Amino acid sequence: MKYLSIDSSSRRLLLLGVNEDKTMGVTLHNVGRHGTYLAPAVKDLLEYLQMSVKELDFIGCGIGPGSLTGLRVGISTVKGLAYPFDIPVISFCSLDLLAYNNYLSSAVVMRRGREGYYYRRKYRFEGYKPVPVEEPGFDSVDKLKSGILTKNEVLIFENEQEKEQFEGYDSLIALPPSPEIMKQIIVKAFEAGETIDVRELKPYYLQKSVAELNWERKHGKST
Amino acid sequence: MKYLSIDSSSRRLLLLGVNEDKTMGVTLHNVGRHGTYLAPAVKDLLEYLQMSVKELDFIGCGIGPGSLTGLRVGISTVKGLAYPFDIPVISFCSLDLLAYNNYLSSAVVMRRGREGYYYRRKYRFEGYKPVPVEEPGFDSVDKLKSGILTKNEVLIFENEQEKEQFEGYDSLIALPPSPEIMKQIIVKAFEAGETIDVRELKPYYLQKSVAELNWERKHGKST
Repeated sequence: MKYLSIDSSSRRLLLLGVNEDKTMGVTLHNVGRHGTYLAPAVKDLLEYLQMSVKELDFIGCGIGPGSLTGLRVGISTVKGLAYPFDIPVISFCSLDLLAYNNYLSSAVVMRRGREGYYYRRKYRFEGYKPVPVEEPGFDSVDKLKSGILTKNEVLIFENEQEKEQFEGYDSLIALPPSPEIMKQIIVKAFEAGETIDVRELKPYYLQKSVAELNWERKHGKST
Repeated sequence: MKYLSIDSSSRRLLLLGVNEDKTMGVTLHNVGRHGTYLAPAVKDLLEYLQMSVKELDFIGCGIGPGSLTGLRVGISTVKGLAYPFDIPVISFCSLDLLAYNNYLSSAVVMRRGREGYYYRRKYRFEGYKPVPVEEPGFDSVDKLKSGILTKNEVLIFENEQEKEQFEGYDSLIALPPSPEIMKQIIVKAFEAGETIDVRELKPYYLQKSVAELNWERKHGKST
């Protein structure tokens, strides 16, 4: 099987290429804007693995939640690659990449959104593998503390300083997500028949962009 | 800080480059012989990060235990890069890469050596970080079962089929080691002042090569 996968939901760009038994993973963290590096990095990856886009059985794509600009770049790139050859797509929640880190009974992955807000998704663990138990959510720190989070769950953060906002909760820092964890996620989804048409691919936009918030402030809600 | 790190102790070649806040990680699994791919991959990595060998503050190097040929390639490459500019080296035990996977109280990382033999290293966990409690060892399955391993420890394997040889023991499969886990290991060692001169760099050769065993069979032990 031949496939490619991208997650661009954070400042750490994850790329994976698989050509039968050959696997190549690339992580670019802060190396530059995703928009500048993603396309050449995909090209280099395909060269290392000696395969071409039209041979791919599917393309994996992290759809967030996370950086809005990052997601637009990643998803646009996947669309650009998949459209011409009608390659099926596997989309997955980017928070799942952070859950593959620990062997707990229950945990909530927490990713910072805009000031005072967090994306979150809860997992239980089956034989050391995380299984999501809810759709990802987006809430204020106050709302999370006054009901959504319980003190029985371990919170998994990406950065040390984020723990400070949740004093009194049991928490740990996620190991950095890796392309090979992405591989486990997309292979499982592919085997479960969860491919979608590239036209259906869209991001988890749980958080409104600052531009949208400003527009609503001026003109009222659009819905 | 600028640095580079390589682990070539298994079929999964791990490469890491850091240029101040920029990090790039590359994993090549089965892509080809390490001897063919390592040098060009290092060159590409340095180009992505826009840095050159002579600028490096140190070079990290996994010294096994593991594949003898793989280690020779990795260590020779690090020597080739470090010698001309007298760049300090951080050497680390490759088994440590597999221990950063789990949040247990005690665990033993197990890596297959030649038929019927395993490399192993035991860890305790400090606030979710593994701390080795012994030097790596190399023993037969029989010897491991009749005394070295206890049933209180969790065994961490690289592949599913290896678990079968240790039925009755609590065990799990390591998450694939990643360049960013290597980063945590070498940065910790660098901060602890554990650099060595490149002339001191040598592999953990716990297992005699098949050639050595054959020689001894014919000529008697050389000790």
